[in-house]
Amino acid sequence: MVSESEIGAAVAEKKAKRESFGGWEYARLLHGWQGWPRGTILAEGRVIPGYPKIGRVHTLAGIPALFHAPFQAEEKVDGYNARLFRAGDSLYAATRGGQVCPFTTDRLADLIDPSVFSAHPELILCGEVTGPETPYVEGTSPLVPEGIGFFLFDLMRQGAEGFLSIEEKRALTRSFRLPAVPDHGRIDPKALSTFREIVRRLDEEGREGVVLKEDSPRGFRAKYVTGSAEITDIASMAQRYLDVPPEYFTERVLRLALFLEEMAATDREGWSRRLGEAFLTALQDRIGLARRGQCVGSFRCRFHSRENALRLLDSLGQIRGHEGETRLVNLREEEGFWVLRFEKLYRSTTGFLRSALGGSLRFD
Amino acid sequence: MVSESEIGAAVAEKKAKRESFGGWEYARLLHGWQGWPRGTILAEGRVIPGYPKIGRVHTLAGIPALFHAPFQAEEKVDGYNARLFRAGDSLYAATRGGQVCPFTTDRLADLIDPSVFSAHPELILCGEVTGPETPYVEGTSPLVPEGIGFFLFDLMRQGAEGFLSIEEKRALTRSFRLPAVPDHGRIDPKALSTFREIVRRLDEEGREGVVLKEDSPRGFRAKYVTGSAEITDIASMAQRYLDVPPEYFTERVLRLALFLEEMAATDREGWSRRLGEAFLTALQDRIGLARRGQCVGSFRCRFHSRENALRLLDSLGQIRGHEGETRLVNLREEEGFWVLRFEKLYRSTTGFLRSALGGSLRFD
Repeated sequence: MVSESEIGAAVAEKKAKRESFGGWEYARLLHGWQGWPRGTILAEGRVIPGYPKIGRVHTLAGIPALFHAPFQAEEKVDGYNARLFRAGDSLYAATRGGQVCPFTTDRLADLIDPSVFSAHPELILCGEVTGPETPYVEGTSPLVPEGIGFFLFDLMRQGAEGFLSIEEKRALTRSFRLPAVPDHGRIDPKALSTFREIVRRLDEEGREGVVLKEDSPRGFRAKYVTGSAEITDIASMAQRYLDVPPEYFTERVLRLALFLEEMAATDREGWSRRLGEAFLTALQDRIGLARRGQCVGSFRCRFHSRENALRLLDSLGQIRGHEGETRLVNLREEEGFWVLRFEKLYRSTTGFLRSALGGSLRFD
Repeated sequence: MVSESEIGAAVAEKKAKRESFGGWEYARLLHGWQGWPRGTILAEGRVIPGYPKIGRVHTLAGIPALFHAPFQAEEKVDGYNARLFRAGDSLYAATRGGQVCPFTTDRLADLIDPSVFSAHPELILCGEVTGPETPYVEGTSPLVPEGIGFFLFDLMRQGAEGFLSIEEKRALTRSFRLPAVPDHGRIDPKALSTFREIVRRLDEEGREGVVLKEDSPRGFRAKYVTGSAEITDIASMAQRYLDVPPEYFTERVLRLALFLEEMAATDREGWSRRLGEAFLTALQDRIGLARRGQCVGSFRCRFHSRENALRLLDSLGQIRGHEGETRLVNLREEEGFWVLRFEKLYRSTTGFLRSALGGSLRFD
């Protein structure tokens, strides 16, 4: 456990930042510290470990060398990472960076059966939240055509390093009917033809990819993403083109090229068209918007509590990568929910396009 | 004129850098200084002004407001900017940054009739050098299918600000049969339909674009580039994908989107395919090269003097944006020329691709 004075030291060293949600006070790690990763939540006598980064393989060639035992091929769902946990009598959901997310926390009991925390108060449910009604990214996984969904991929325990084993996770998932990411089976790293077929099928269905989890004590992991997912990301983030670092796009184009090589894609022309369209269709849309006013992203999220909706608006100013200003459109009760409609203002994209369309001169 | 002590002061302030070529000593401006732009060459009693930046218009909408008088629509040729001038008894060619270019200097008398400098020793010929046998960029303008070519677009005088008038330039171009950029005529900024047709035709022919030069004392200028040129640039620089700043690509994609909007392009699908292909075909090629060894750019340049060939190799290590290591393949006499074959090593591109193809794990 971590004492209050240690937390104070981490804050003083700027390794951690104090936060609060409702009455609950905590600190979150901005960097790795004392073996805990970025995003770890520290509170009096409590540690919610951050979710560790998973390395990416760009080609399947490395898998036999990287994996020493068969791995479970779990689907990688396109959404945002959330850790659901209990502190005192309350349940919270934390973002990857370790902030309590007002939206996910508000809707937590819609996502999973909260009785899992009565039986196992120390449990941390790690999963992906996705759907068209989430507050962070436009676009959604094909797995959730409406509303929101949660897909469990890992269980942790408060104060403990590492994940519960595949068997423990299966048992708890079954007992509490927890929604989990699709499991595409156990794969021998030396026989990848099945794996290749799984990836090919996911790609055809526009799904994001796979997390490979070695079934061994060291539990080695890697992720592999489909070409379709790269294109979906480009199309989605091109909506905020100049409000995103340029390497967001160039890295995905490169990964797509490696994917096509890996899969020995034959329809090169079709892929070229899809890649070009991902950029040009979104940009055409943005040019039209800029001509009429502003480039914004429009979001609609439903809450049980009005206060959480306002907290979300407030927090969107702080989350890294979402620093664009947020504008409330409206917040009203509809069919038993508080429905929050808001816009993110993509200021750089708007500014550049308006100036370009106005015919102003630019020195580059 | 600028005195030797003033040059010394500029060097001490890091505004200028001392250089030499053969026995000739000079300094070049790294930043604007005393009203002279970056790239200006200073030598004892001599100033070769830098070539000023020309602002870009992204849409034609701004032209009527920016231009107060008819403008000359001169073709913008895709190559590198060179200033040809005389100092003492020698003729030199300088790059945009103000370095004497050993290649262009060596071939100067093949590009233009040097007698223009006997009659007008103070003249500076500003133009674009392009062709498949130039040392800086792979790819070439459709105007020069083989060898190298020079296209004059401006005349300046040593020690003087500004350009010679359109009439003076025409007279000298005629007298000395100087090769000039294609002139697409005089355009009224309030009647742009002709201009639009010129741009459309240049785009169809894969040509770079137009520089608009107001025919007035203030000589206001702007440039407008075709969508085809954006795609050509992407395809060409994708050969050194990770050795180029990512915004090189993202800015061109955005400019292409604005061009398509401006030209009310109907064949969106064709443009999407071309854009995607520009990225994916080059990257496929690079992946193949990385698998077999290294990603390099291959260059072949012909020189009159062996010494100049060696000087070029030497200088390629210094020019900004070309810091990738250069490797001599061979240098030998062929049909009256010293033929230099060299490769530029694209280290970041090679490094990333080899590691990705080897299957190594990456945390991004």
